Amino acid sequence: MGKKITAAFYRGDKSFTVEQIEAAQPVAGEVAVRIAYCGICGTDMHVYHGNMDARVGFNRVIGHEMSGTVAALGDGVEGLSVGQKVVVRPLDHCGECPACAAGHQHICHKLKFLGLDTDGAMQEIWNVPAHTLHVLPDDLRMDHAALIEPVAVACHDVRLSGLEPGEDVLVIGGGPIGILCAMVARDAGGKVVLSEVNKNRLAIAEKLGFDTVNPAEQDLAAEINARTGDKGADVVFEVSGSQPGVDAMTACAATRARIVMVAIHAKKPQIDLFQFFWRELKLFGARVYEPEDYEKAIAIITSGGVDADTVITDVSPLSEIQAAFEALDKSPTALKSLIKVGEDA
Amino acid sequence: MGKKITAAFYRGDKSFTVEQIEAAQPVAGEVAVRIAYCGICGTDMHVYHGNMDARVGFNRVIGHEMSGTVAALGDGVEGLSVGQKVVVRPLDHCGECPACAAGHQHICHKLKFLGLDTDGAMQEIWNVPAHTLHVLPDDLRMDHAALIEPVAVACHDVRLSGLEPGEDVLVIGGGPIGILCAMVARDAGGKVVLSEVNKNRLAIAEKLGFDTVNPAEQDLAAEINARTGDKGADVVFEVSGSQPGVDAMTACAATRARIVMVAIHAKKPQIDLFQFFWRELKLFGARVYEPEDYEKAIAIITSGGVDADTVITDVSPLSEIQAAFEALDKSPTALKSLIKVGEDA
Repeated sequence: MGKKITAAFYRGDKSFTVEQIEAAQPVAGEVAVRIAYCGICGTDMHVYHGNMDARVGFNRVIGHEMSGTVAALGDGVEGLSVGQKVVVRPLDHCGECPACAAGHQHICHKLKFLGLDTDGAMQEIWNVPAHTLHVLPDDLRMDHAALIEPVAVACHDVRLSGLEPGEDVLVIGGGPIGILCAMVARDAGGKVVLSEVNKNRLAIAEKLGFDTVNPAEQDLAAEINARTGDKGADVVFEVSGSQPGVDAMTACAATRARIVMVAIHAKKPQIDLFQFFWRELKLFGARVYEPEDYEKAIAIITSGGVDADTVITDVSPLSEIQAAFEALDKSPTALKSLIKVGEDA
Repeated sequence: MGKKITAAFYRGDKSFTVEQIEAAQPVAGEVAVRIAYCGICGTDMHVYHGNMDARVGFNRVIGHEMSGTVAALGDGVEGLSVGQKVVVRPLDHCGECPACAAGHQHICHKLKFLGLDTDGAMQEIWNVPAHTLHVLPDDLRMDHAALIEPVAVACHDVRLSGLEPGEDVLVIGGGPIGILCAMVARDAGGKVVLSEVNKNRLAIAEKLGFDTVNPAEQDLAAEINARTGDKGADVVFEVSGSQPGVDAMTACAATRARIVMVAIHAKKPQIDLFQFFWRELKLFGARVYEPEDYEKAIAIITSGGVDADTVITDVSPLSEIQAAFEALDKSPTALKSLIKVGEDA
């Protein structure tokens, strides 16, 4: 008989139940991770709103922005030991498709995203494939470590951009991922301007020391040109997912600028391809992260390159997950809400 | 008094006049080039149709796809000698704008395109800045050399794509530039499929040995997947300038494929940005060429990597420029029409 643990299940229609279940033993190749914290991702909010019911069903433990410690090792797992602080890179690939064959396992054609396509981290013990683990420094705070997954998204975006120190950066959209892109770009030496229409988000960005523009009140392209000697931004992160954001990404771009498509555009926006021709712009699609992005994110969180205490705006216990989602859904100022799943290591 | 030469002037409304004018002496830093051949570019056809009247006016000698020999050197020009075979890279940059400062002189913010913004090569003697000249091998045929400018466009496109030998290439659009992209990509080791709806152009592409798909009759994405083991094309050249072409460029792309935007899209098409995210696609805008693209084009034309005799479908004397434009405008099968401006060297 396994030990009883607490787990939160998504049950459809903006509802969770918190239940006692029997912990499964890790099978061969798996590691049991004792979860400390798990952040609420924008994707988790999509689940809450019922937009992903066909994919996740109504008996799913979600959550993937976690921190924890190794609780037990399945057969054949080497190089890890019980008690180590870890994070999970929640991607499981097939190993056989053309993307895997080309070395792009993180965008495998049959990718399983742990915590959506499988049960996730909103439970006290989470069994995951050993290859998904990254070991953390012993002295890293576990609440801060729960930011590693979203910071790794930003690290992937910034790495793909090829940002060099001193370059002019425009981040279009100041939600949690936009703010993290701005922080990681600044950490890499970029001169960052953040564009956002929401005044609460603008206030947060300014508190974090960013130069901001509100394109509802100012001509964004004129502002960027004025700040860059009529050159434009060398690197643009489109994080807004909006047609005005897509318009701005070409209007504000320098000759041969690199534009990183961070937002997920469910619709097909119109794009000013003439500007792509005229200024030889480059557009890079970016999805999740690769192992090196996780290592970079761990280094940035450890060094304080991201202001974790400002980014974490709420912490709730797992027993109050329902209230935490409801509060985050209504909050105009929240950045990252964490669920405290277990005890701090 | 200078010597009299023949020159063709665009006079508006699909009309040219062929006139005797006095040849100007090359000023300091200029070279007088005796023109052998000048090809008719798609841009020249836009001029003929009156689409560029505001830019070129009604007293303009057009033409830039030329070959010729050095006729005279202005003061201060070194490293060239009378009689050398040359081509002109018809770009004159300001040297002061942010693009020039970043080393991208070919897309200078104030770029002058010789033969549009200044008089061009549809005249017996053309004076150009010395820095625009590339010297040709002595034994290169001058009719073939008139293809160097459009081949340099294709060389720029292929170079920016980063094409590696053995990669799967899709060229969308089989007009003159599409055919040249296909030829240069094949010369670089790419496995090329060409997509085109016009049956005359398909026949030419097949005559040139290309695997073709007619997307009006076949499912292009299914055909590309079938030919690539469900991987998709590693490199896509969008040369059609159409919404269906833009739809195909994302639908046929492999994970992390590089899509080169060769066509000039005057309208803003809708783009499937979700696919950019999902497969981490890359889009590269490409405009004209840089010096190394000219050197590559010279090497390809010299080596026979482009089948020049098939590409050149018509040659007319300068005195018949009017008839040559009229014929090219109506022809369903023409690829490249040349004007024979002077005597062969």
